[in-house]
Amino acid sequence: MSLVRVHNFAVSLDGFGTGEGQTADEPFGHAGERLHEWYVETRTFREMQGREGGSRGVDDAMAANWGSGIGAEIMGRNKFGPQRGPWQDHEWNGWWGGNPPFHTPVFVLTHHTRPSVEMEGGTTFHFVDAPPKEVLRRAREAAGGLDVRIGGGVTVVRDFLAEDLVDFMHITVVPIVLGRGERLWDGTEGLEERFRIESVSTPSGVTHVTFTRR
Amino acid sequence: MSLVRVHNFAVSLDGFGTGEGQTADEPFGHAGERLHEWYVETRTFREMQGREGGSRGVDDAMAANWGSGIGAEIMGRNKFGPQRGPWQDHEWNGWWGGNPPFHTPVFVLTHHTRPSVEMEGGTTFHFVDAPPKEVLRRAREAAGGLDVRIGGGVTVVRDFLAEDLVDFMHITVVPIVLGRGERLWDGTEGLEERFRIESVSTPSGVTHVTFTRR
Repeated sequence: MSLVRVHNFAVSLDGFGTGEGQTADEPFGHAGERLHEWYVETRTFREMQGREGGSRGVDDAMAANWGSGIGAEIMGRNKFGPQRGPWQDHEWNGWWGGNPPFHTPVFVLTHHTRPSVEMEGGTTFHFVDAPPKEVLRRAREAAGGLDVRIGGGVTVVRDFLAEDLVDFMHITVVPIVLGRGERLWDGTEGLEERFRIESVSTPSGVTHVTFTRR
Repeated sequence: MSLVRVHNFAVSLDGFGTGEGQTADEPFGHAGERLHEWYVETRTFREMQGREGGSRGVDDAMAANWGSGIGAEIMGRNKFGPQRGPWQDHEWNGWWGGNPPFHTPVFVLTHHTRPSVEMEGGTTFHFVDAPPKEVLRRAREAAGGLDVRIGGGVTVVRDFLAEDLVDFMHITVVPIVLGRGERLWDGTEGLEERFRIESVSTPSGVTHVTFTRR
């Protein structure tokens, strides 16, 4: 069975998955790197960047699960880039350089579609204007029986939760108070009824919370 | 040195310290008992009620610290009871029966003052209409050199955090999404800069987060 999974999605204590004021230099706005310090130290993240070393503890074990068994990703336009409205800069192909770490089809949700872009290493960006169920159907088809990852940002995860399309979710709670940005939990009252939930704190100070569909 | 401490203060994943719709039967509104299931199982809570047994694990170790070295408590009117506006029911003396578990002076913040009430067991309720710093001065005086506990609810903890009056804070994050109520973290952006923060998850599923002033 092809599952829908969320991985390595960090939120602040006050539930913000991103800060305010996204720019090309600050994908997470005023949050800066603070939501992801636990992550950039892991072997998994370094490997994505072609670097050696990194931690191999619980943070890495959690981080490493993001790729296994995934055949496609769905992401929002704000995860793809900082442009809003009709595309101005057609050279922009994400924050990840010429060989993005996805290595699968990636469906970018946008009201402004454009031709697909094939990158090095197996990543192809498809730009689609469709409701969650429809884009999931297309992603599953492209995934060839493997799982589909919901890559974020916040509103995309919320939209898929709202339609009860998520089977597994790994949220990392970072002990900072962002105060502003996009709240993950808005509109998800009673979420715990649909999932078995586990929590584990790690020495880096974060708490990994996993949601597995009951 | 007399410290200002917050203990056993539970919030949902989305940061609500209480639900919507407080009544005499439901002190935490639609949250019901869900924020405190981890707590009512502990030896500490049972002992308060004159009952035996209860867990002695990490949840209890955290819970047990609430009383040691405390000489006074400050609480908001909504922690004291569900009445709003001028007092109608002068017989109401809190949710805790004739012998409340505080056993110290307790300062209840209210715009509607009334005479102090001496209960069995050393608890005296004083009703004060004063800003945080002034009520803290009075509580410290009453505490005779011991620490002062901020007992909640949400807005009282927030008010004392906003004035940087809190030295230690123990928050328990419960993996539920309440969606409605009073948010603890509102107005506390950047709180992590003032505290050393530790987190520990326990088998009951909650995560205890402690804030110790740097």
